[in-house]
Amino acid sequence: MPDAITIPAPADFHVHLRHLKMAHLVVPHVRKGGFSLAYVMPNLNPPITTTAMALDYKAQLQAIDPSVDYLMTLYLSPDLTPDEIVKAKQAGIAGVKSYPRGVTTNSDGGIESYEMYFPVFEAMQRVDMVLNLHGEIPSDPATASNFLHFVVFSDIGTEHLPFPRLRIVLEHATTRAAVEAVKACGPTVACTITAHHLALTVDDWAGQSFHFCKPVAKYPDDREALRQVIREGHPRFFLGSDSAPHPIEAKSTSTPTHGCAAGVYTSPVLLPLTAHLLESFGALDKLEGFASTFGRRFYQRELQAGQSQPVVLQRTKELVAEKYEAEGADVVPFWAGKPLDWQIVS
Amino acid sequence: MPDAITIPAPADFHVHLRHLKMAHLVVPHVRKGGFSLAYVMPNLNPPITTTAMALDYKAQLQAIDPSVDYLMTLYLSPDLTPDEIVKAKQAGIAGVKSYPRGVTTNSDGGIESYEMYFPVFEAMQRVDMVLNLHGEIPSDPATASNFLHFVVFSDIGTEHLPFPRLRIVLEHATTRAAVEAVKACGPTVACTITAHHLALTVDDWAGQSFHFCKPVAKYPDDREALRQVIREGHPRFFLGSDSAPHPIEAKSTSTPTHGCAAGVYTSPVLLPLTAHLLESFGALDKLEGFASTFGRRFYQRELQAGQSQPVVLQRTKELVAEKYEAEGADVVPFWAGKPLDWQIVS
Repeated sequence: MPDAITIPAPADFHVHLRHLKMAHLVVPHVRKGGFSLAYVMPNLNPPITTTAMALDYKAQLQAIDPSVDYLMTLYLSPDLTPDEIVKAKQAGIAGVKSYPRGVTTNSDGGIESYEMYFPVFEAMQRVDMVLNLHGEIPSDPATASNFLHFVVFSDIGTEHLPFPRLRIVLEHATTRAAVEAVKACGPTVACTITAHHLALTVDDWAGQSFHFCKPVAKYPDDREALRQVIREGHPRFFLGSDSAPHPIEAKSTSTPTHGCAAGVYTSPVLLPLTAHLLESFGALDKLEGFASTFGRRFYQRELQAGQSQPVVLQRTKELVAEKYEAEGADVVPFWAGKPLDWQIVS
Repeated sequence: MPDAITIPAPADFHVHLRHLKMAHLVVPHVRKGGFSLAYVMPNLNPPITTTAMALDYKAQLQAIDPSVDYLMTLYLSPDLTPDEIVKAKQAGIAGVKSYPRGVTTNSDGGIESYEMYFPVFEAMQRVDMVLNLHGEIPSDPATASNFLHFVVFSDIGTEHLPFPRLRIVLEHATTRAAVEAVKACGPTVACTITAHHLALTVDDWAGQSFHFCKPVAKYPDDREALRQVIREGHPRFFLGSDSAPHPIEAKSTSTPTHGCAAGVYTSPVLLPLTAHLLESFGALDKLEGFASTFGRRFYQRELQAGQSQPVVLQRTKELVAEKYEAEGADVVPFWAGKPLDWQIVS
């Protein structure tokens, strides 16, 4: 058992940084949690649908903390054009995020409607921009619940996309089926895994709002598949925290007509938490690959000589903060009040 | 479509009436919800483990509303003796409720430990007292979640009970497997179904505390099995509401260390709600069997001539109350603020 670990430039390939007051609370937590790269989700209100919006958003984030490398994304919508993809690539935007609800809202055919995006995907393949797929579809109350089913490519209509060089990431996998589907793909397809899905199962969020997120944590066997693929050191599976802050009231309070907000907030403790969890299932030696190298390689953000920005973790039993306070936006982190075995020392 | 329905003496064969202040709020709701018989669960704190406690509890309930027929139960525990069973039967106590956690707390062997209760079960069979089985076992975090699995007799070690005449009720079935297991049994085994499990699926309680109960609602296919067995008019499946009031704070508020209370409160609207739901899936003509006749027959509480105590429902679009107020114990009912198609008129 090592007493210290050094990880070069940890990278979080899926994070929600919000805007306005909430951004001022959470953006500094990227660095606090040990990370120097943030792959930023575009689902603000309104969503980030153009290059101009993404660059403006990036400038806001840089104004809060200029020391983080923000990789920006666009929200896939019918307004997105091949020309805009070219423009986005030139502006350094890294990917396009597809949310299933956007698909179904804007078409009669549901998942088949990805065809309407083929010109966009063709442009993305040409300029080498990544497609990020949210692996859920709305649950159909008339037939079957999709809530505990993490969809794979066939469910969202992307299994036969005629773009063999388009790089695709299936986001926040939660099931054995998702792990196996990605493993069966070639080098253009990768998968993010959150830290909290390495800890939780369905038992943990039932009746416990602070553990409720989407996709929900599934069964122990699914969690074991996520853990195992990390233990294997599979290079196409890497950390994307899906860290998603919500004000404490939105998480803690339910009414008969409204449920709680979905999201687990891991950013401020992300690297210590990931080290703690990986060690718990015998994969501490894979932390560097999972939390830095593998994702950077897939996203072509490998570290150059002299760029390693190492983060050092040491053993501790320090407790995670009960909450983080900011004017009007208290947020409770995952693992609140509980001890982690690792802390960042430099 | 009828404009009015008359049901003779509706009977709720599984209800939590609590004690103290909460009992003063909820006991009158049995009659308000259309019911004149309440099969009363013994899980107070402390639990009702003796005939004397059950009679005392019954007297408290009768003092609040003497017009309801309260069928009392004992909580299965190692303190319960065959002599106490005989005494209980003589005092009119109807059944013994087995909670799985009680079993596992008081034995090393878990489910095998039902053998320690064989002398009690033998006495129950002899005096013809009903065994009520709570169809859940604690989820094992190390292996598999039982949370979304409604256990059947083999899971709780009761599939080979050597008491062929012991009458058994599997309480609040939520899965197709449970329905099929009970259907495969003979006339000594019956099953209760709640109203809310005819409405909810797993999608409805995820992140929505007011729909969180145990056992949790399962998948649409499971719900369809519950609906289908009612449509069939199967005489060994009948209503047990499992109506379980909790103060609004216990339902609405979650903290990082404590989840919300499990339970859905249906008593004050139970017969209109049951009629509304049965009509929604084409089983309104089975309301009398499901909510009165079948349970009364199994429990040998059939109505005698001149005892019919009919309840009349008429069509309405009235909204269910947002909450019921009592000093220190506001409670939100199921279906709060939403319209039901039926109301009680006499």
